Amino acid sequence: MPLPSHSRSVVEEPATRSVTRRVLSVLDVFAGERGWLTLSDISRRTGMPLTTTHRLVGELVSWGALERSHNGRYQIGLHLWAVAALAPRGLELREVAIPFLEDLSETTGRQQVRLAVLDGMDAVLVERIRARGAGSAREPTGGRSPAHATGDGLVLLAFAAVAVQERYLAGHQPGAGLRRALAEVRRTGFAMSDQIVSVGAPVRDATGEVIAAVSIVVGPHGPRPSTLGPAVVVTGRTISRALSRRAEGG
Amino acid sequence: MPLPSHSRSVVEEPATRSVTRRVLSVLDVFAGERGWLTLSDISRRTGMPLTTTHRLVGELVSWGALERSHNGRYQIGLHLWAVAALAPRGLELREVAIPFLEDLSETTGRQQVRLAVLDGMDAVLVERIRARGAGSAREPTGGRSPAHATGDGLVLLAFAAVAVQERYLAGHQPGAGLRRALAEVRRTGFAMSDQIVSVGAPVRDATGEVIAAVSIVVGPHGPRPSTLGPAVVVTGRTISRALSRRAEGG
Repeated sequence: MPLPSHSRSVVEEPATRSVTRRVLSVLDVFAGERGWLTLSDISRRTGMPLTTTHRLVGELVSWGALERSHNGRYQIGLHLWAVAALAPRGLELREVAIPFLEDLSETTGRQQVRLAVLDGMDAVLVERIRARGAGSAREPTGGRSPAHATGDGLVLLAFAAVAVQERYLAGHQPGAGLRRALAEVRRTGFAMSDQIVSVGAPVRDATGEVIAAVSIVVGPHGPRPSTLGPAVVVTGRTISRALSRRAEGG
Repeated sequence: MPLPSHSRSVVEEPATRSVTRRVLSVLDVFAGERGWLTLSDISRRTGMPLTTTHRLVGELVSWGALERSHNGRYQIGLHLWAVAALAPRGLELREVAIPFLEDLSETTGRQQVRLAVLDGMDAVLVERIRARGAGSAREPTGGRSPAHATGDGLVLLAFAAVAVQERYLAGHQPGAGLRRALAEVRRTGFAMSDQIVSVGAPVRDATGEVIAAVSIVVGPHGPRPSTLGPAVVVTGRTISRALSRRAEGG
């Protein structure tokens, strides 16, 4: 395996690094973005000159990381989706969790059941069992909500790294109430949210780290949220156990 | 908006381009790859020196395009999944198609129904309605199969660009039978596959371009495949119409 000489790597490294960051900063513009963006939008949001943006976007389109609409706007491309769809945290988690999510939904009168992970400051929906009669008004997989707004998000935040929690609390009014709520989640092992009426519980990997959260969103004629804690916690533990079994098997 | 001077862009462009390609070539290693890879695997498959690979992979991990397992292997990261999950061709298509896929499954005795798109030479599964009693043996979203193996893949191949078809035929034994099969798909507007017993039909966007294919995979006690063509074709057309209505609305 040829190794670059020391002098070559010193010359090459800063430029390389900055190009990689630029490529990723273009992709970041589309995180949580469902609309199609113009080159100017991308240039403005990345802070890159229009010519650099144009060149990078062109390369990303030709690989399939972005696609260009008939009216010259851009969105994430099919090839990137296809490459990323097999991400293990999305995929294994969903494969393992789906039957248990369905059981939880069935045994609680077909409430909406969510499985979410923390990405930055947001709870990102990995899978969802729709409530009975919810029709087509479905939040898509990959959809984001502020972590404090849902039972699953509160759980993810409560068990996140302290630095993440502090950053979240600093940007959130009123921080004190949320701080107490997170401490309560860690004490009881589940979260009740009344913003979006829901009950959440953690999903852990084989090392005990919280990697996801399951929640029930309770409809207006659903059961009292306070009665649902045990069922949600049991579902979280069952999924955690199934993940650990699979980790041992692999 | 500051534009780089001509001399600067001449100096910068080739280096930039090659770094972008390297970043994307690392991601490409994971297309259709469900296992976790070592740095050496990634270095070998991209043809990049180990030091360059190490540096790029480090940057991709810190952004969340890749994640590193406890034993030092790599896979696609959660952040890239979350960014890509909202890709419109995956997302809009699924949102629009799901109710119609469910209807097709229900009205044909709960057969498996697939929605796939062409990525490179593979049919990539975008969504699937499981057959009754199929249990957990489910092919994941993002899973790939050679295009000629399924009804949906045959449709995608039959309506793909001529260059793509020729490349596929060149790599496929026996090419002549497949070439006739593709012509037959274009003539009849649907595909019957006996490799994986299934019937496929095209889904078109507002411009008439085939962007996806729907199929039924017929179980051993399911209906005769030859009776299913009209139902699959109607479903493909219904989804196409719904996509066009949405495109007009947006």
